[in-house]
Amino acid sequence: MYELSARAREIRERLLGFMHEVVEPGERDYLAAIAQPGQRWEIPPVMEEMKRKARSAGLWNLFLPDSRNGAGLSNLDYAPMAEIMGRSLIAPEVFNCSAPDTGNMEVLHLYGNEFQKRQWLEPLLAGDIRSGYAMTEPDVASSDATNIRCRILRDGDHYRISGRKWWTSGAMDPRCKFFIVMGQTDPEAKPHARQSMVIVPRDAPGVRILRPLQLFGFDDAPNGHAEVAFEDARVPLGNLIYGEGKGFEIAQSRLGPGRVHHCMRLIGLAERAIEAMVARAKSRIVFGQPIARHGMAQEAIALSRCEIEQARLLTLSTAQALDKQGTRGARDRVSMIKIVVPRMACQVIDRAIQIHGGAGLCEDSFLSHAYAGARSLRIADGPDEVHIMTLAKMECSRGEG
Amino acid sequence: MYELSARAREIRERLLGFMHEVVEPGERDYLAAIAQPGQRWEIPPVMEEMKRKARSAGLWNLFLPDSRNGAGLSNLDYAPMAEIMGRSLIAPEVFNCSAPDTGNMEVLHLYGNEFQKRQWLEPLLAGDIRSGYAMTEPDVASSDATNIRCRILRDGDHYRISGRKWWTSGAMDPRCKFFIVMGQTDPEAKPHARQSMVIVPRDAPGVRILRPLQLFGFDDAPNGHAEVAFEDARVPLGNLIYGEGKGFEIAQSRLGPGRVHHCMRLIGLAERAIEAMVARAKSRIVFGQPIARHGMAQEAIALSRCEIEQARLLTLSTAQALDKQGTRGARDRVSMIKIVVPRMACQVIDRAIQIHGGAGLCEDSFLSHAYAGARSLRIADGPDEVHIMTLAKMECSRGEG
Amino acid sequence: MYELSARAREIRERLLGFMHEVVEPGERDYLAAIAQPGQRWEIPPVMEEMKRKARSAGLWNLFLPDSRNGAGLSNLDYAPMAEIMGRSLIAPEVFNCSAPDTGNMEVLHLYGNEFQKRQWLEPLLAGDIRSGYAMTEPDVASSDATNIRCRILRDGDHYRISGRKWWTSGAMDPRCKFFIVMGQTDPEAKPHARQSMVIVPRDAPGVRILRPLQLFGFDDAPNGHAEVAFEDARVPLGNLIYGEGKGFEIAQSRLGPGRVHHCMRLIGLAERAIEAMVARAKSRIVFGQPIARHGMAQEAIALSRCEIEQARLLTLSTAQALDKQGTRGARDRVSMIKIVVPRMACQVIDRAIQIHGGAGLCEDSFLSHAYAGARSLRIADGPDEVHIMTLAKMECSRGEG
Amino acid sequence: MYELSARAREIRERLLGFMHEVVEPGERDYLAAIAQPGQRWEIPPVMEEMKRKARSAGLWNLFLPDSRNGAGLSNLDYAPMAEIMGRSLIAPEVFNCSAPDTGNMEVLHLYGNEFQKRQWLEPLLAGDIRSGYAMTEPDVASSDATNIRCRILRDGDHYRISGRKWWTSGAMDPRCKFFIVMGQTDPEAKPHARQSMVIVPRDAPGVRILRPLQLFGFDDAPNGHAEVAFEDARVPLGNLIYGEGKGFEIAQSRLGPGRVHHCMRLIGLAERAIEAMVARAKSRIVFGQPIARHGMAQEAIALSRCEIEQARLLTLSTAQALDKQGTRGARDRVSMIKIVVPRMACQVIDRAIQIHGGAGLCEDSFLSHAYAGARSLRIADGPDEVHIMTLAKMECSRGEG
Repeated sequence: MYELSARAREIRERLLGFMHEVVEPGERDYLAAIAQPGQRWEIPPVMEEMKRKARSAGLWNLFLPDSRNGAGLSNLDYAPMAEIMGRSLIAPEVFNCSAPDTGNMEVLHLYGNEFQKRQWLEPLLAGDIRSGYAMTEPDVASSDATNIRCRILRDGDHYRISGRKWWTSGAMDPRCKFFIVMGQTDPEAKPHARQSMVIVPRDAPGVRILRPLQLFGFDDAPNGHAEVAFEDARVPLGNLIYGEGKGFEIAQSRLGPGRVHHCMRLIGLAERAIEAMVARAKSRIVFGQPIARHGMAQEAIALSRCEIEQARLLTLSTAQALDKQGTRGARDRVSMIKIVVPRMACQVIDRAIQIHGGAGLCEDSFLSHAYAGARSLRIADGPDEVHIMTLAKMECSRGEG
Repeated sequence: MYELSARAREIRERLLGFMHEVVEPGERDYLAAIAQPGQRWEIPPVMEEMKRKARSAGLWNLFLPDSRNGAGLSNLDYAPMAEIMGRSLIAPEVFNCSAPDTGNMEVLHLYGNEFQKRQWLEPLLAGDIRSGYAMTEPDVASSDATNIRCRILRDGDHYRISGRKWWTSGAMDPRCKFFIVMGQTDPEAKPHARQSMVIVPRDAPGVRILRPLQLFGFDDAPNGHAEVAFEDARVPLGNLIYGEGKGFEIAQSRLGPGRVHHCMRLIGLAERAIEAMVARAKSRIVFGQPIARHGMAQEAIALSRCEIEQARLLTLSTAQALDKQGTRGARDRVSMIKIVVPRMACQVIDRAIQIHGGAGLCEDSFLSHAYAGARSLRIADGPDEVHIMTLAKMECSRGEG
Repeated sequence: MYELSARAREIRERLLGFMHEVVEPGERDYLAAIAQPGQRWEIPPVMEEMKRKARSAGLWNLFLPDSRNGAGLSNLDYAPMAEIMGRSLIAPEVFNCSAPDTGNMEVLHLYGNEFQKRQWLEPLLAGDIRSGYAMTEPDVASSDATNIRCRILRDGDHYRISGRKWWTSGAMDPRCKFFIVMGQTDPEAKPHARQSMVIVPRDAPGVRILRPLQLFGFDDAPNGHAEVAFEDARVPLGNLIYGEGKGFEIAQSRLGPGRVHHCMRLIGLAERAIEAMVARAKSRIVFGQPIARHGMAQEAIALSRCEIEQARLLTLSTAQALDKQGTRGARDRVSMIKIVVPRMACQVIDRAIQIHGGAGLCEDSFLSHAYAGARSLRIADGPDEVHIMTLAKMECSRGEG
Repeated sequence: MYELSARAREIRERLLGFMHEVVEPGERDYLAAIAQPGQRWEIPPVMEEMKRKARSAGLWNLFLPDSRNGAGLSNLDYAPMAEIMGRSLIAPEVFNCSAPDTGNMEVLHLYGNEFQKRQWLEPLLAGDIRSGYAMTEPDVASSDATNIRCRILRDGDHYRISGRKWWTSGAMDPRCKFFIVMGQTDPEAKPHARQSMVIVPRDAPGVRILRPLQLFGFDDAPNGHAEVAFEDARVPLGNLIYGEGKGFEIAQSRLGPGRVHHCMRLIGLAERAIEAMVARAKSRIVFGQPIARHGMAQEAIALSRCEIEQARLLTLSTAQALDKQGTRGARDRVSMIKIVVPRMACQVIDRAIQIHGGAGLCEDSFLSHAYAGARSLRIADGPDEVHIMTLAKMECSRGEG
């Protein structure tokens, strides 16, 4: 329905071919590698190989709308690429399109100074390093940004950062070189001017990776999600991004495209789940006929198809709104997809699990891991309830000027 | 998202103006007129006035893709018009775009012979008469067309029709002049070649309107839904449409655009319901603050918005698929909207009822009547279960050639 | 599971017999009588006949725990009787056990003075008159009792009542002789001491029945639900119940048993719906086999059975809690059944409608009418949302002393 | 509501005390022990200590209705004990009441010969060994028992067992000494007379534990769920339980009480989840007030309470039906709880996760692990769909004799 540009169509074809030829077999090697004793937190060499191939194939940084450093695709043109990559848990990294690096690159691209760009953005764009985004805190309801307690104190020519963050994705990855940290610079300012963002190298003194967190039992190695302590960590003043008190503003700006990416990836995952569901339903016999001929399985399949199609159209329409109306104009749709897509993905994957029986619950299928990922997105980046409240308020103020 | 053609945009503007200036006040007169004692089954004169105005304003037969008799709009261009009309239960008739006339005109336009066109299609196009579609039978599960028992027997130069039909919408309307009747001409033929369609004048001997049916207590006067007996009713052979054994094929052809129309009208109704819900939630105070500030009401509003947007995009995509790929290529999407949209409308309207409290249950709001209409569409034109089964089968045979 | 007393078991047997022998045929006569032109708001004679029979059979006032005037059954013993009566929309009246008379008798029994008992309670107990309960107002969210605006002004030896009420069930019934009206006597008092209850004869000057209200499209004749204006209506001071400022307290007291009755009746209705669903599913053939062999229908049947059983057990446990711990101790359970049972009934009836197809939508089955009744109970007597809030608060204050 | 016997009340009190004094602190030690490097599949000594204490406290084999070997409690009396134990993932083992040992003890108690009882039942009753139940197969839809392919071939004075089983819970436990294996002895017999059950020592030649399976990401160490290959494993003829062709009958018999146990344990887990949900909602502030004061959280809490109460009553009523009417008479209720309770537990735990935010997704709460367990019970022991079908059939054959 939504028409891709000619260039996006061409890239899409190549991306599909690359997924099939490189990523699918590579994923098997990758999983085998980290399953080796003692190799869980090492990056399998096949990943760097795949990255090299993707880069030379021009399938690199497709997410970045800037055409000098990225593919220069619009949000609408990139969305189907994100869906394709989302089918595999490792594919986004192959194309240097994985969170939280994408959001961090976006932020540095838009708000970073020259030094920050050279020091941090360029190696990220090159895929030489990775990064983390330290926003959520274990001790407060972080969905309300004004709750954030981490302190960023100016002290001469340095900032001193104190606080505890968790669910810092990618922090366990040995290639992770820095975090973008959100914290309070001025607790007395107006609620949305209290926060700032600062770049903190992972090896800065006072930074301590406390532990990897499990998501429904999955450690998501070798990238992982970490709890990180900042114990009077010191960074030069030049590591501040954009300006003091700009943290909230920066955070908002990264949310629009980032949420579209997340949602399109989930749609890819849900699409893979319905394919698996159909394949299983056709091949297993129960009570004399394939599962696919039993009414409740048909219901699972048909409703999943209906929900995926709707979620995809809504997300594409959001990408288009971002292109045409900007983050502000697309705000309502961004909230909608954040509410709708993770729920849809959970539901579709859950149905696929049910149809797989025991195989759906264990590591023989991708489903339980996919479920955990989809479920986490009903909480990460603002829980459903916050987006529901936001969307309802927008709906109630329509036409009120 | 979906771009309308320039012509459709222009018509849409005029349609909106007409709705506001003519239909909204006209609806009040209309309802008042049929509420008068003894006037329940009379057509209020204001209807014919509005029709005249609509016709001279060029807002007439917008549904018909044929540009000589209708507006020549594509399905995608017409869809938003159907949504607008759907906000009012009487608006579709004002623009000569109401079911079942639209489907009947479509059938006669595509399959009627010259005589049938002159005799039945032309006055329908002119809005001078109305018609009924006699398909569903009380005694069998009519969703399975092979169950249809009504007999159409060739007898010399006539057909004799015997059977009982119900939910024949429009049959109570004094302007209704004929029915298109589906029945079996050859019970021995292959299942899908048994049925034929024949035109039966409402005043033909042997046609008896048994009673109006109530839908959740609503009689939907003055159009109504009737149970009709065909007791050896006789019509000339020339009243057969297209050919013996073609009934199933004709029935299929009318379903694609017809379902898009039904669904877009329901989306208009749901949109009106969410507007009413928001208005009520903002104006009523409970426990010290407007309902709109209570979490569960926010959830009702936000989820309704998400569901409406998704349903609309899906239906528009279906209209576009009909335009580009034809009925066959759009089959899966047509089933999807038939499953999704009535359920969505029921849910949104039900939430609006809940927020309205007692006012939502009675005639002081349009909501309970709208609910009854939306609920009936989970059954009419094939119940959910049949479409779910059909869609699941299509999903399972994808890529099987 | 829950054991009935020997006496209740004996009554229950007789009640079942009476339902079968008297009420079932009587219901057909009753419906035929009010369907006659001009008879819609007349009480069919068969009703008074059935009442006489019920009374002489000792199946009278079974709801009243007082053994002098009623059956002296506990809440737990009466609950299954209410379920049996609930299967028919007219049965409760036959046994003098229909709302709002039951609640009004309860109130007069507990709080009425001698005069009130003689004047109003005795003829109600005898089934000679009927009554209304005028609580809900069209202009405010009445679920928050502090919103009630109707004024009850002391003026010498009279009260003057001014306000508008609606959904006053039974008010259209020609036998209805008085209303219990809730209104404000002292707007300056503490929120829960502002209201009082007063008896207002239906023929008092200043009482005007404005109109019957429709529930969905049903007028529920000949009992009906009315909008009633009190325009400076005057009643003697002796018509005040219990004391000024006691309105809220009295209202609370009638809620416990009343809600159990409502819920058990709905369970009876749901039970009748699942029986109808099963009968239909077994008798209709679609795609070569009875509906009952299709998976989605099986799901509808099985889930309905699970939900009914659970709702029944919860309601019986609530009846028992009322018996053992009183209204206060059973508060949480009373909220639970008010949330659970109407939703369950709506869902079960809705599934039965779906399986009936067109027959489920119209007057050929009891289902659409039953749906309207069940749906109204998600609003009447406090909407779901209020009970959810109340229950959550109780849950949060558990163990806090 | 359901009254416990005096003896059960007394045991229940002691059980609660023991849980608080012994199991709660013991659970912390246990989890710490298996978290040590290399200790994952070792049984922490604290477990055997707790078992000794439980045994000397007379809180041992409470599940066994036989009063010589067990507590002699009825199903109804034992049910609340299972709920209490179910709050902790390790508590059932402490009291020698954990699956699959309980089912295996039941089977040996009812169907075992003297040799089998002495050899296998006695050490199980003493808590000296553990056991596995090898029923489900990876290659077939095992919910349809006639699909089972594992062969049990008579060969002189031995049986030779060949097949592959998985989800054999407890098989990874070093104390596990034998499996009860379900397989086909006579593929030509009538469908339900083909299967037999045989005892296979874990160290029998030809038995190979292939791998532990993960449930979502949890390995459930040190008990685990294994895939097990039987490669021409040989056991003496005396290891056959009850008789050839009796496998299906034995399997049925263990299902009634076993399902009540599973369900009551899940109810305990759900109860713990709602308590955690409430505690979290009361302590976290978001947008200026505790989560517990936000409407959507109130809805989560209240609906969870309603669902838990209903599920508990239904399960207790099932236990009572088993006591009074036996497995056959309770069949419909056993299916109901199997459908209702795991879904309820998933839903309640999921809501608790949502209210916990990030903490609910990781190992800092018990919730994600509890979710995985509850989710698996929608598949284990017959998937929802099979029980729905079964229950619908029973509903449809009611009153048909």
